[in-house]
Amino acid sequence: MKISARNVLEGKVVKVTKGSTTAHIVLEIAGGIKVTAAITNEAADELGLKVGDAAKAVVKASDVLIAID
Amino acid sequence: MKISARNVLEGKVVKVTKGSTTAHIVLEIAGGIKVTAAITNEAADELGLKVGDAAKAVVKASDVLIAID
Amino acid sequence: MKISARNVLEGKVVKVTKGSTTAHIVLEIAGGIKVTAAITNEAADELGLKVGDAAKAVVKASDVLIAID
Amino acid sequence: MKISARNVLEGKVVKVTKGSTTAHIVLEIAGGIKVTAAITNEAADELGLKVGDAAKAVVKASDVLIAID
Amino acid sequence: MKISARNVLEGKVVKVTKGSTTAHIVLEIAGGIKVTAAITNEAADELGLKVGDAAKAVVKASDVLIAID
Amino acid sequence: MKISARNVLEGKVVKVTKGSTTAHIVLEIAGGIKVTAAITNEAADELGLKVGDAAKAVVKASDVLIAID
Repeated sequence: MKISARNVLEGKVVKVTKGSTTAHIVLEIAGGIKVTAAITNEAADELGLKVGDAAKAVVKASDVLIAID
Repeated sequence: MKISARNVLEGKVVKVTKGSTTAHIVLEIAGGIKVTAAITNEAADELGLKVGDAAKAVVKASDVLIAID
Repeated sequence: MKISARNVLEGKVVKVTKGSTTAHIVLEIAGGIKVTAAITNEAADELGLKVGDAAKAVVKASDVLIAID
Repeated sequence: MKISARNVLEGKVVKVTKGSTTAHIVLEIAGGIKVTAAITNEAADELGLKVGDAAKAVVKASDVLIAID
Repeated sequence: MKISARNVLEGKVVKVTKGSTTAHIVLEIAGGIKVTAAITNEAADELGLKVGDAAKAVVKASDVLIAID
Repeated sequence: MKISARNVLEGKVVKVTKGSTTAHIVLEIAGGIKVTAAITNEAADELGLKVGDAAKAVVKASDVLIAID
């Protein structure tokens, strides 16, 4: 599958936190940077996400803000 | 200003493309990874974004999808 | 690639409108329903989207609102 | 009320799952397709959503990604 | 129509800027605050938005970030 | 920090509800208007949000829908 999202960041799952309906998944990508995703528990289960797995963070360009100091 | 967004990725502006109302800003973050943001032209002007500037890509956790191969 | 998004709607491209930076893609999914996506021109080009192509509309559950009459 | 969202998909509620703050609502739309929304518990209560109710899934065009095989 | 979005801010259209595909609509809400929406040109046309019209800005709770100084 | 988001609404925290992973923060902005944000518990903790605090609701223009009666 190819997707329109401009941002597909490859990494490794370093943390999986299930809530009552929403799970938080933390990936470590290049340079040791952590990226957090909030997805449904159902999605986390369906993808079988667990610490150590290779995974990608996918972000649509229109969901990225820019900040400067 | 401190912000609730879980993902604040530091980088450098490598491309600015103005459209008629929407601008595309590309940052290079750690590991040479490119991140694209679609923001308003007005925001791009107000922040004075130009190639070479330090800038951050800010993404709310609920806007991150996870994909696996 | 498997993705966490809860909504993956299969369809066929029925319209592609390029703007200066943002493209509008219309898919026809089951039941003759039209779904419109606003993506970057760059993504539309990269996927080579044209009328008649099979394609999927992908939507994260947290981006769906519910309305009632 | 008329809304700017390009995607208003009519359906019927087939599942309501309340979490501690976030509810998941599943609608069945045309062609037997399921659409999942993650909304606040508060919104689910206020709309009085229950299985069998007519409801619409509303999605802004900028929140739709396109994928191809 | 009743909608799940937690934030429905009543105002008046003070500016309409059409781009090639994306329009920017500025509302003035209570306290003279300006709220900007980026929607499709098509939506702006369909709602017939023009300066002086009453209109509402609708925002899903999951699309609101919190910042502090 | 300056941010590209077009909408930065100043207010005061009037309610903090922690869920298992997702918190709901309600701000009161000008004119007594309430704005609700759904953010991660982690973000709420990190910002130390509590009732009475000054805080801002930040919303990207592409996440604002327009509705009319």
